[in-house]
Amino acid sequence: MGEFRKPISISEAVLKIMNIRMKGKTEYVSINESYGRFLSEDVLATSDVPHFDRAPYDGYAVRAIDTAEASQQNPVEFEVIDHIGAGLVSNKSVGPFQAVRIMTGAQMPDACDCVIMLELTKDYERDGQAYMSTKRVHKPGENVSFRGEDAKEGDILVSKGTRINPGIQAVLATFGYAKVPVAAKPKVGLFATGTELLDVDEPLEPGKIRNSNSYMISGQMERTGAEVTYFGTLPDDFDTCFEAIKEAIEKVDMLVTTGGVSVGDFDFLPSIYEKLGAEVLFNKVGMRPGSVTTVAHYHDKILFGLSGNPSACYVGFELFARPVIRKMLFSPNPHLRKEKAILDVDFPKANPFTRFVRSKCFITDGKLITTPSGLDKSNIVMSLAGANSLTILPGGTRGYQAGDEVEILLLEEHEGSEWPW
Amino acid sequence: MGEFRKPISISEAVLKIMNIRMKGKTEYVSINESYGRFLSEDVLATSDVPHFDRAPYDGYAVRAIDTAEASQQNPVEFEVIDHIGAGLVSNKSVGPFQAVRIMTGAQMPDACDCVIMLELTKDYERDGQAYMSTKRVHKPGENVSFRGEDAKEGDILVSKGTRINPGIQAVLATFGYAKVPVAAKPKVGLFATGTELLDVDEPLEPGKIRNSNSYMISGQMERTGAEVTYFGTLPDDFDTCFEAIKEAIEKVDMLVTTGGVSVGDFDFLPSIYEKLGAEVLFNKVGMRPGSVTTVAHYHDKILFGLSGNPSACYVGFELFARPVIRKMLFSPNPHLRKEKAILDVDFPKANPFTRFVRSKCFITDGKLITTPSGLDKSNIVMSLAGANSLTILPGGTRGYQAGDEVEILLLEEHEGSEWPW
Repeated sequence: MGEFRKPISISEAVLKIMNIRMKGKTEYVSINESYGRFLSEDVLATSDVPHFDRAPYDGYAVRAIDTAEASQQNPVEFEVIDHIGAGLVSNKSVGPFQAVRIMTGAQMPDACDCVIMLELTKDYERDGQAYMSTKRVHKPGENVSFRGEDAKEGDILVSKGTRINPGIQAVLATFGYAKVPVAAKPKVGLFATGTELLDVDEPLEPGKIRNSNSYMISGQMERTGAEVTYFGTLPDDFDTCFEAIKEAIEKVDMLVTTGGVSVGDFDFLPSIYEKLGAEVLFNKVGMRPGSVTTVAHYHDKILFGLSGNPSACYVGFELFARPVIRKMLFSPNPHLRKEKAILDVDFPKANPFTRFVRSKCFITDGKLITTPSGLDKSNIVMSLAGANSLTILPGGTRGYQAGDEVEILLLEEHEGSEWPW
Repeated sequence: MGEFRKPISISEAVLKIMNIRMKGKTEYVSINESYGRFLSEDVLATSDVPHFDRAPYDGYAVRAIDTAEASQQNPVEFEVIDHIGAGLVSNKSVGPFQAVRIMTGAQMPDACDCVIMLELTKDYERDGQAYMSTKRVHKPGENVSFRGEDAKEGDILVSKGTRINPGIQAVLATFGYAKVPVAAKPKVGLFATGTELLDVDEPLEPGKIRNSNSYMISGQMERTGAEVTYFGTLPDDFDTCFEAIKEAIEKVDMLVTTGGVSVGDFDFLPSIYEKLGAEVLFNKVGMRPGSVTTVAHYHDKILFGLSGNPSACYVGFELFARPVIRKMLFSPNPHLRKEKAILDVDFPKANPFTRFVRSKCFITDGKLITTPSGLDKSNIVMSLAGANSLTILPGGTRGYQAGDEVEILLLEEHEGSEWPW
């Protein structure tokens, strides 16, 4: 412990993790439970849309040829021989100068090839028989939605990896997907380490703080789309931790620990990984916060040793664990979405390391602006509460001024970026 | 039926609905289940943060006064009398030129008033006793996080109506909120009407389409934060519908029906509302799609008669039902978030009515751009799948060109607008 740690770049760290083969699995859920899940297969049109020629408006279905002589001076009269609502089919055979009253969405009678909108007709009765007349010429196909006009059977309508929204649910229902193929939620285990930790329902004690990381990380996992198994807190004791981690990793796809990774005397997560026989991918990254993140590869699983510091823990999760989870959710864009924004405040102090500042971004007159969401001290959980983004301040020899263009990572966006570094 | 309907403006319609007194209720959930819920009370700091003076770095706690003579030429030596990790409290009394090795987050020993960072010390042993020396003068308070420095007991940390994110979960845990006061999910009932509707698991039939609205609306309700009760489909039959609606409204806070509101011959939702004794607030709105939306007030409940047309249904829900649900979730900004964006395509045709175009907005070089997400025909569910926004094209005598600044409503944003019209 306290041994030399060589920091690697963020991009190297992300690449090492993403190179590990982690595969998603499909499961089928009821369309009723599909909201917010991720498609594990493309959604195909299982039929033409519409699947029959239909009326897009309320009106009269007729043969266009019969309107050829219509004009302001010469209204053409039609005998109304049937009346059909949406969902019904007329069994009448429509002849010359006959019409079927038809509702929006109803199927076109066979012989008809246009719909005259209600507003362009006059209807009346004579001897108990309904008639209508029109003064306008119609072309064949006018006001008809033809079969397959919106989609052809076999078309890809939504790509796999897409998060299911209400509009996609409408598409799934339209095409009969009562059961929807979605990505099984990756199983992620979680431990919080640290003798200083009290549980949320314990009263404060001198020197101790309540464990906030495990609730925060659980929320982050849920937001990303994982299934969280919380294995509890661990004391700063090597053997207890080793046994607990060894047992837990068998039950999950990934295991996250918070705390126990820094260079302090009582830290030992990296040693546990070594004893386990896991391949440590890196134990230090050139970034702030989160530099002491340790990630290891064990069989077909990944161990994330995040810092016990709330901000470092938060950022470490979003940069390193999120893309693995999203990859297992079939996302082609598994990383946090990166966008350009205008900085709202000065950061006068130069910093050798790339920094991720907890930020609140907003749009003013169509332009993206970013501002810190609180004090940028890494022990402050309050600024995490108001953060919807991380502002990236690349390390270098100068500070940053309000008005500078910077890059930000959006925390609450469902659609990510392919490769942000 | 077919009686004259007078359209009112969108802003009038929204106002009429929002003037109805709909109150949210509080319920308590475990912090573990709080992600994505809406706070029904402000979150207060239940203690100072930190609640004790603490070390923000690994190092040695000493009395600053003892470093007064330190310099490059004159390292000052301290006897290391204790060693404390985070969560532990030293019971040693620290005297002149004595130091306690202290870890990040640990409580400061009483007599100490500064921390010397590890990097600025040299440690060694002599006769089995640990010592350290430093060459730097420290001021009282240097490298100490003082009690109450980040937050004072009683401070409001997060406002009610805020959607709980992972950072807020960290705050809740820090302050001992094992049970979190959240808004009870408003209970919203749902019927789909229409003889033309097949269920999602039924094969297609001539003239019929599958019911997609109820799955779509369920997703919209879930996204907004409501609890959905789906009461099934109703045939286009007055008495059956009347009885079903009368019974269902007693079980929910709001009742949404899709279909049965248009001017077609077989529509009758408004008549049902009248027979029920409900006050019809409006039955037509000057907008496209969604003009035939009918909304009624019945006791302390609201009945939303949305169009059966998928797009009209979708837009009607977002404009009229969403803000009521969000109000019951204590949101100060219950409406869809409105932002300015640059239009990506032409809409050459003038239109007398305000239109809501299903759109995909994105950010390019920090600027918000909006483009239609598909064909803008109101029967096309596919364009809803790709929509993350609605582009507002106010009615008037001219069309719109690519490059025009327009307003858009964001569908996937958790933070809304106070009053968008």
